[in-house]
Amino acid sequence: MDYQTRKFRVIGRNTPKVDGVEKVTGRSRFGSDVRLPGTLVARVLRSPHAHARIKRIDTSRAEALPGVAAVITSSDFPELTTGERSPYGVVGERERYLSQEVMARGKALFHGHAVAAVAARSSAIAEQALALIDVEYEVLPHIMDPVEAMGPGATLLHEELYTQASGERSSTPSNVAEHLVYSRGDVEQGLARADTVIERSFRTQVVHHGYVEPDSETAFVHSDGNVEVWANTQSTYGQRHDLSAILGIPLSKIKVVPTEVGGGFGGKESVRVSAICVVLSRKAGLPVRLSLTREEVFRATGPGNAIVATVKVGAKSDGTIVAIQARLLYDAGAFPGAPLRSAIRRVFSHYRTPNMRIDAYDVVTNKPHGAAYRAPGATPTNFALESVIDELGESLGFDPIEFRLKNVSVDGDPMPDGVRLPTVSFKEVLSKVRGHSCWTSKLEGPNRGRGIALGMWTMPGGTTSCHITLSGDGSATLVLAAVDLSATRTSLAMIAAEALDIDLSDVRVVVGDTDMAAHSDASAGDRITYVASKAVLMAAQDLIGHLKKRVAEEFGLEPGNVQYAKKRFWVEGAPEMQISLADLALRSVRGEGGALMGYGSVSETFSDTAIAPNAAAHVVDVEVDPETGKVEVLRYTTFQDIGTAVNPVQVEGQMQGGAAQGIGWALSEEYQFDDDGAMTNPTLLDYRLQTAADLPFIDANIIEAPSPDHPLGIRAVGQVPIVPPAAALANAIYRATGVRLSRLPMNPERVYWALVEAKKSSE
Amino acid sequence: MDYQTRKFRVIGRNTPKVDGVEKVTGRSRFGSDVRLPGTLVARVLRSPHAHARIKRIDTSRAEALPGVAAVITSSDFPELTTGERSPYGVVGERERYLSQEVMARGKALFHGHAVAAVAARSSAIAEQALALIDVEYEVLPHIMDPVEAMGPGATLLHEELYTQASGERSSTPSNVAEHLVYSRGDVEQGLARADTVIERSFRTQVVHHGYVEPDSETAFVHSDGNVEVWANTQSTYGQRHDLSAILGIPLSKIKVVPTEVGGGFGGKESVRVSAICVVLSRKAGLPVRLSLTREEVFRATGPGNAIVATVKVGAKSDGTIVAIQARLLYDAGAFPGAPLRSAIRRVFSHYRTPNMRIDAYDVVTNKPHGAAYRAPGATPTNFALESVIDELGESLGFDPIEFRLKNVSVDGDPMPDGVRLPTVSFKEVLSKVRGHSCWTSKLEGPNRGRGIALGMWTMPGGTTSCHITLSGDGSATLVLAAVDLSATRTSLAMIAAEALDIDLSDVRVVVGDTDMAAHSDASAGDRITYVASKAVLMAAQDLIGHLKKRVAEEFGLEPGNVQYAKKRFWVEGAPEMQISLADLALRSVRGEGGALMGYGSVSETFSDTAIAPNAAAHVVDVEVDPETGKVEVLRYTTFQDIGTAVNPVQVEGQMQGGAAQGIGWALSEEYQFDDDGAMTNPTLLDYRLQTAADLPFIDANIIEAPSPDHPLGIRAVGQVPIVPPAAALANAIYRATGVRLSRLPMNPERVYWALVEAKKSSE
Repeated sequence: MDYQTRKFRVIGRNTPKVDGVEKVTGRSRFGSDVRLPGTLVARVLRSPHAHARIKRIDTSRAEALPGVAAVITSSDFPELTTGERSPYGVVGERERYLSQEVMARGKALFHGHAVAAVAARSSAIAEQALALIDVEYEVLPHIMDPVEAMGPGATLLHEELYTQASGERSSTPSNVAEHLVYSRGDVEQGLARADTVIERSFRTQVVHHGYVEPDSETAFVHSDGNVEVWANTQSTYGQRHDLSAILGIPLSKIKVVPTEVGGGFGGKESVRVSAICVVLSRKAGLPVRLSLTREEVFRATGPGNAIVATVKVGAKSDGTIVAIQARLLYDAGAFPGAPLRSAIRRVFSHYRTPNMRIDAYDVVTNKPHGAAYRAPGATPTNFALESVIDELGESLGFDPIEFRLKNVSVDGDPMPDGVRLPTVSFKEVLSKVRGHSCWTSKLEGPNRGRGIALGMWTMPGGTTSCHITLSGDGSATLVLAAVDLSATRTSLAMIAAEALDIDLSDVRVVVGDTDMAAHSDASAGDRITYVASKAVLMAAQDLIGHLKKRVAEEFGLEPGNVQYAKKRFWVEGAPEMQISLADLALRSVRGEGGALMGYGSVSETFSDTAIAPNAAAHVVDVEVDPETGKVEVLRYTTFQDIGTAVNPVQVEGQMQGGAAQGIGWALSEEYQFDDDGAMTNPTLLDYRLQTAADLPFIDANIIEAPSPDHPLGIRAVGQVPIVPPAAALANAIYRATGVRLSRLPMNPERVYWALVEAKKSSE
Repeated sequence: MDYQTRKFRVIGRNTPKVDGVEKVTGRSRFGSDVRLPGTLVARVLRSPHAHARIKRIDTSRAEALPGVAAVITSSDFPELTTGERSPYGVVGERERYLSQEVMARGKALFHGHAVAAVAARSSAIAEQALALIDVEYEVLPHIMDPVEAMGPGATLLHEELYTQASGERSSTPSNVAEHLVYSRGDVEQGLARADTVIERSFRTQVVHHGYVEPDSETAFVHSDGNVEVWANTQSTYGQRHDLSAILGIPLSKIKVVPTEVGGGFGGKESVRVSAICVVLSRKAGLPVRLSLTREEVFRATGPGNAIVATVKVGAKSDGTIVAIQARLLYDAGAFPGAPLRSAIRRVFSHYRTPNMRIDAYDVVTNKPHGAAYRAPGATPTNFALESVIDELGESLGFDPIEFRLKNVSVDGDPMPDGVRLPTVSFKEVLSKVRGHSCWTSKLEGPNRGRGIALGMWTMPGGTTSCHITLSGDGSATLVLAAVDLSATRTSLAMIAAEALDIDLSDVRVVVGDTDMAAHSDASAGDRITYVASKAVLMAAQDLIGHLKKRVAEEFGLEPGNVQYAKKRFWVEGAPEMQISLADLALRSVRGEGGALMGYGSVSETFSDTAIAPNAAAHVVDVEVDPETGKVEVLRYTTFQDIGTAVNPVQVEGQMQGGAAQGIGWALSEEYQFDDDGAMTNPTLLDYRLQTAADLPFIDANIIEAPSPDHPLGIRAVGQVPIVPPAAALANAIYRATGVRLSRLPMNPERVYWALVEAKKSSE
């Protein structure tokens, strides 16, 4: 097995999902398929106000209703104080706010915020009980706009929220949780030296991941206090941590069993539903399941963050970018924690510049708390940057590709935070685009245009562990507690088969619960295939090492003399000294030395070098109907350096799925709020999720530049594809209409009026 | 932690079961608690004949019944040929016969033998379907008595069964599967030199384990061929092996999930019910559950074997035993495999003798196939030996204890197969008895007598594996695939807490399925606490080693310089170099070097030395009612060397439970058969299981002579207590009545007629 020579047996072949049949025949167990005897149904009472003080909650009438087993409010949750020691460690801001997000304490901070919950024998009884809970609210002014939230005299959402900036804390409370600055060179001087400077402002909207499966979780607090949770979560261990921290239950008392996850995209990382189930179950003594409705998913689970941004880029007339400046407000929703770093590190790494200054703000508003959404924060950020880059290049008379090629980052260039990009393939990707028919073909006809935008992602780091046990027939069971969101069961089984030099059908892969496997961080941010594959290789190597030791002991040799390949151990030059894997495996379970296991655990952290950057470019052709403003996507082509493609068919699926979500974000999806801060379109139809019928075929072009920081050369695939679409579409719309749009979504209404405005101002 | 000095923190304290609350509140999941959506109910059609050729089975009418999803017969099982390669390895005799036991092929070999099975929407429909299956039988002569089965011209049960004897195979088929000979010295010469020789013959009956929970298992064959089985089995991996071998399914396609086991005692080791469920589920495409009725448990699950034995022991007038000879027929039931070696090795190791000859026979009869039952085969074998020893001692004028003390085996003495007893505490145990009030107190009144008998067990060997993961708070999760039958969750958690030097409440112990943990052999034969504790120690040591390495790396030292105790690592003489387990654990999951796991797997085999012999003696006082023959147990006292007692309260429970079963075997329990070979008393009441009301308090005296072959000094406890009761009671009845009984059970009818006979012959 050698990634340099790419001599793989299993890796690189298009392989059907190992759990594909189970999935398509409806056998896989998703959140709401968990059915324990005696399970109670939970329903949640939600705030009808976007911002209100909870003066009093009277649950007595609800509790008295026959069939109601438990009613809870925030008084049933421990009140957390930052800095206190929880069973898991010290409680941080995140845990304190998470507790308040799960159940409103003192104030409701967004329309739909949970204020009480009921567990009852049936959903109908639970709904009836909700109506019997009396809540007295004092309605407060609500703030939906981050600019307004930052303004002087704005109503404060949190009385104890101060602005963190360069390690300092503001003297007075604020709606700004953090002011992040990345700076290098002298941006003022840089801009002054530029021949052309473009500065534009942008606004994007709150969007939802649109995962198909609503949050649905079950908890059972046993009579001895042991907690079992069945969660459609992206992070078993994360959920265990969260439950431990916010409920004050020791880790050793909690087991989190993952169900299949019908889409997560970052939206199912932190605890939400199961904490309510645990508190209800503890009170009721029976299992409790809470399945959110689609409306609740929209109103009360984390949407992707909106931004308000101003980006200013200056270049010399020869096309060299000399300065990039940006001011970005990230709308965190009701609690702090917008993905400033996540987005800015990657997006503002596309282009080299000696001078850069980024000011970013984590701003709270009375919207549902934002959650990570595929390449968190990068899509709107990239929309802003790549629109300005496109305009700048054009204004200097450059072809879009040539302008980018002149300026893209190369190996060793710094990210905004100073961390270096080890290897990055923008040039290879753009060269590939330049020769592809999606770029070389002529796009004819009126109101048509072609746009391009870049995207890039690097690993977020974290820990993943796995173990491999060897069965008596030489087959292997690979166990890890990392949830499968993107066919990682299949890709990891392939890697295990490759590394153990056995057949794919001899690998059984198990997504374990927190009891079964050692710590793994969330399945998120493209971590799994990259990090888990390292753990699988480590475990496989560990297992083969143990086996070689056995063989060596048998023949009285040093393990170094034992060779292994194709299910057979042998000693060079000693044909009598050989044994099959199957025979050795059988002996190991039949009383000769003990059964064998290999273990691997990998933690990835970046210090001065980023991990496995994966560069991408999207090219899109559109036709804009000037009479309705409707944008039709004629052709969509993606290019991405994913390093070694373990399972190409799944890689293509990720590239297509991400692009589809990005197109929706760009063209149609948005939360619409009324004057009271209530979302008015909480259905998939009104929210306007893209369907297969709306989308063209998305052509996925894989570029494989093996990443030297990974033994198999793997980079990643899942995050980037959502990043370029909004910018690529905006640039294409510009080429089709001559108008640059600065707001998302670029839906017919917005495009139509932009065309009208443009026409007006040109008259 | 040092077993020599016995300075334990956790081990040795009476500790409530860690899963006690779950058990007593009915939350633990037993076989019939498994409820999957859409589960079909299975019922089995059983042979109404003890021996019959199956000429034809027509299932068409049953298949046509609405609500019936599948009907199966032996034609749905692969026909196994010994020596063929199965997915697991080569198919042996055991697997071939097991397949036929699960579903009769060609012939029904006992009354109740499964000949077909149905899966239907309801139990009522399934029962109705059974009545619609037409089976044409040719009834054959049946044999219920092993003596008859060995006789010339006896009807043969199996056409291809030959007698194995000293590696040779008989030239013609036979009902004797094996003739085992153990011999040393010259038994004829020995007996000739004896001053007194006693020879007596014995017969015992078939008994059932009487486990409270009938066999109840569920299988689901997924549409991609993956098999999931929920089994109330003693052996997850054994069940996986059996299913693989007899159904021809690769190991990597099978997952066996253990439920709690409501009693096993050896009766739930090999596959039986789940194989039928698997074949039905594969045909029906839905989960299938089969729960046996109590009647089916009696008629068609393995009972404990009956024996017919003649034992001859000769001694010098000074009390020295000079020769032991025995001929033992073990009634295997319908398929070979009676526990000859298991029983003889232990029982005939009680006493030293230069001359010994044992001839033992594995004989098939038309009874249900015998299964291992607590100290397999030892109870009836010991009944024979200890009755003769008692009579011999008395005839030489010795006190029962003094005669035994003179002859018991000591460290280094050989077992019948030549394997040596490393250490054995018969002398210590008998000394303890001699000073105890159960022996020194006077037993007054008519028809009363006191009896004693010895017992002994050694480990059966096998493999057990476990792993320990470390959570972010420094708590530990111990995972192993060995089912908990005797509070081993608790004892192993205690050992893990001791070894890791953490609190018991910081250990979470998980009985895993075959996907979760590496290979473990059956929870049987006293293996678990002895073998698994070694694996736990190994895993704990492995984990602490990894932790020390981390600490050493941090301080730039060699791991050997790092000390660990009480959740803290430190370096001698460097007070600044220390770190808590919790901090280290937290770091390990937060991206510093990877999460940590310790692994251990132990295989125990005996080659020239036996493992951890545990000697026992039981003393019983009885009163016999001469008018009814009823034996009342007045006082019952047990003594046993169990080495280090990990959890004394559970040790006592094992000693009491085993003695209770032995008393039942001795006094009341038996299968009664009619002339057609059908069991006539297949209910717990008619079978006459002992209840708490029948039994006296059983006083358990623990002797702790640490076993040097175990790092904690553990021996074992669970098997031996069932071994002495029958002999001790027979000896007590003799002292009360002057009559020696030679048949079990010694129920009122049999005792009454024995007294009448004795009176007659003395007149």
